[in-house]
Amino acid sequence: MPSNCPTLRINSERLRRDFDQLSEIGATVGGGVSRLALSNEDLAARSWFADRIEEAGLQVRDDEVGNLSGLLCAEDPQAKTLMIGSHLDTVPNGGRYDGAIGVLIALECLRRISESDIKLRCHLEAINFTDEEGTWKSLFGSNGVIGKISAADIDDALQDNMPFRAALYRAGIMLEEIQSARRDPAAILGFLEVHIEQGKTLHERDLDLGIVKTIVGRTTYNVMFYGEAAHAGTTTADERRDALHGAAAFITAAHQLIRSEYPTGVVNCGHLSVVPDSFNVVPAEASLRMEIRHPDTPTLMEMEARLIRLAQECARDHRLTVSTQRELYREAERMSGYLVKQIESACRAEDVRCISIASYSGHNAQIMNQMVPAGMIFLPSVDGVSHNPREFTEWRHVELGANVLLRTILQLTV
Amino acid sequence: MPSNCPTLRINSERLRRDFDQLSEIGATVGGGVSRLALSNEDLAARSWFADRIEEAGLQVRDDEVGNLSGLLCAEDPQAKTLMIGSHLDTVPNGGRYDGAIGVLIALECLRRISESDIKLRCHLEAINFTDEEGTWKSLFGSNGVIGKISAADIDDALQDNMPFRAALYRAGIMLEEIQSARRDPAAILGFLEVHIEQGKTLHERDLDLGIVKTIVGRTTYNVMFYGEAAHAGTTTADERRDALHGAAAFITAAHQLIRSEYPTGVVNCGHLSVVPDSFNVVPAEASLRMEIRHPDTPTLMEMEARLIRLAQECARDHRLTVSTQRELYREAERMSGYLVKQIESACRAEDVRCISIASYSGHNAQIMNQMVPAGMIFLPSVDGVSHNPREFTEWRHVELGANVLLRTILQLTV
Repeated sequence: MPSNCPTLRINSERLRRDFDQLSEIGATVGGGVSRLALSNEDLAARSWFADRIEEAGLQVRDDEVGNLSGLLCAEDPQAKTLMIGSHLDTVPNGGRYDGAIGVLIALECLRRISESDIKLRCHLEAINFTDEEGTWKSLFGSNGVIGKISAADIDDALQDNMPFRAALYRAGIMLEEIQSARRDPAAILGFLEVHIEQGKTLHERDLDLGIVKTIVGRTTYNVMFYGEAAHAGTTTADERRDALHGAAAFITAAHQLIRSEYPTGVVNCGHLSVVPDSFNVVPAEASLRMEIRHPDTPTLMEMEARLIRLAQECARDHRLTVSTQRELYREAERMSGYLVKQIESACRAEDVRCISIASYSGHNAQIMNQMVPAGMIFLPSVDGVSHNPREFTEWRHVELGANVLLRTILQLTV
Repeated sequence: MPSNCPTLRINSERLRRDFDQLSEIGATVGGGVSRLALSNEDLAARSWFADRIEEAGLQVRDDEVGNLSGLLCAEDPQAKTLMIGSHLDTVPNGGRYDGAIGVLIALECLRRISESDIKLRCHLEAINFTDEEGTWKSLFGSNGVIGKISAADIDDALQDNMPFRAALYRAGIMLEEIQSARRDPAAILGFLEVHIEQGKTLHERDLDLGIVKTIVGRTTYNVMFYGEAAHAGTTTADERRDALHGAAAFITAAHQLIRSEYPTGVVNCGHLSVVPDSFNVVPAEASLRMEIRHPDTPTLMEMEARLIRLAQECARDHRLTVSTQRELYREAERMSGYLVKQIESACRAEDVRCISIASYSGHNAQIMNQMVPAGMIFLPSVDGVSHNPREFTEWRHVELGANVLLRTILQLTV
């Protein structure tokens, strides 16, 4: 209960020191960071994190998919565990805040509680998940925890995963043990994650924090248009079966459809290739990869169906055939209503200006939510810049987020 | 004068035998031919052609850009030369007729005249031009003849032309001698070429021959749209500066503009590449190569200007910048009115159903026309198929074309 809850404040200077030290591991010239999952830099960051856990007198825990945690145990060994964390890995030349700040805040909360004489009803676990960014396999660590990674995923006969297998082996992750990383849901109270928004909403509206209500669902499609190669000069407009012309019409129409009818959804066509790709030959094939996101699963399904129909219409209009193939599917997740309420209550107590917000990027909380109640706090990103050395969050917002998380933890566990 | 002109007929069986033999050189499994310029197959075809020239008692001539000719000389050594020919090289897995049939018909005409006791007022030269298809440099041989190839073109410091230089060297073509291939226009009466149409017009209208009146002009552009890479999920529609979205809008609008306002022109976007080309990143760059053709140069210039303006409008609408860069420019050519009349007169005498036609593909006649009067006869292509093993022209049309050419030569030189 908020009213009975002890009030603690994180040690901002100590957190800042951690942040500055960690930012040096894999630092790039422009002020960014490259800590690709399972790289030397990522392994160095884990080792640094393990030292911080030991230094704080917490217990180090690692699991069969390479997740690394610090534990603060309750008196009762049968108590449930509240997990809190994010990821230390980054995209190539990414920012210093994405993922890292969530792991450091989790650690700082545990340290602060450990220093107090507060008695916990639950174990606390500050966790760093392996390969959130998908250098090898997006959200690998959290999927391991919920039991959705198996050796078969990595031994996939259709693709040569040799380099991935070698990277896992080097990090001490054994294919035959991966499934043992699965945790018992009954033993876990829930999961909390602090992360930067990576969008402009909070920054533009001058807000302190966002409470994530939903995380977008996402489907990825290969859309392949097939026409006929022909002489670029002697083939008349009516005779042409120009695959790129059809693909261009589809891209234009797809953006138009989503903007006008699904303003809270997003479509991206980020990849396009043409065969035979010669300036004086009518394109025979145009393949694009399209990604669709929406915070509501039924709407996502509807967008998907509309876009596939649109691709078929564009193919027909240009005398082409089209093949669509779903590559990736991740349902939208509605965060635990109970945890959202707890975070809201902590925000009120801390007097921060916050709103409910949808996350348009994927997170470990989205995966954990499939097994246990999960909640998520967003910190404002200046100008929404992310996956970029210019990524920046004001330190006062880091402090506010950390204190709101600390209060939420105490509300849940004291 | 047609009325005084002796009547000869080509030896159709002999021509057919040549055609079948030549089709074996570089033959591919599907009934096509690969005789890339300066390849072993191309060199073998030249050697075979030189043997045919000698066998016919004609004089072999080669020049400094690798063109190979058979000469039938008039009595007067000061007489002008009427050049007739095409090319023996092909695209990869191309057809048997494109180029080759024109060289073989030219040779057959010279043989037939040589066998008769006709006295010529002009020398006749049946010529095979080097690299019409552009394996290395499109229309290399005919550009050499008009003096538009220099060592500097091949030694281009901006691109590594080592393989091209090696191929030339192996074929006995010396960079420092290339400019000597230039012929004196005063010594040349004109140039005639028989070629397959590579389009559907003659075939669909059930005509025997086409008399080329114009050959299209052509410009090639690199059009590069620049936006900003961003997170595919968290960047809202209004914030996006999606280079591929702009490029797709441009491709769609460009085809629409040319179809509605320039129905006798052609635009092709055959190449497109995207940076960073990742499905979950908003495209920062989209580069396309566009080719525009029109049989009238001022109209071609107008199309070019309209399309560049259109690219700028599409860029502005999508908050992008755009850069356009002209890569290749070849003016439209109007064939010699005098030679067109001579061919028309020969067609009437031979009673063939023919029309005036514009060529939408480039030819050696287009280059030769820049220096001397040039004329061109098109044979029907079944279904317009070309640059393809299925390329086919009925033999009766080959015969008709050869006899019309023979008659035209006699009209001009007896």
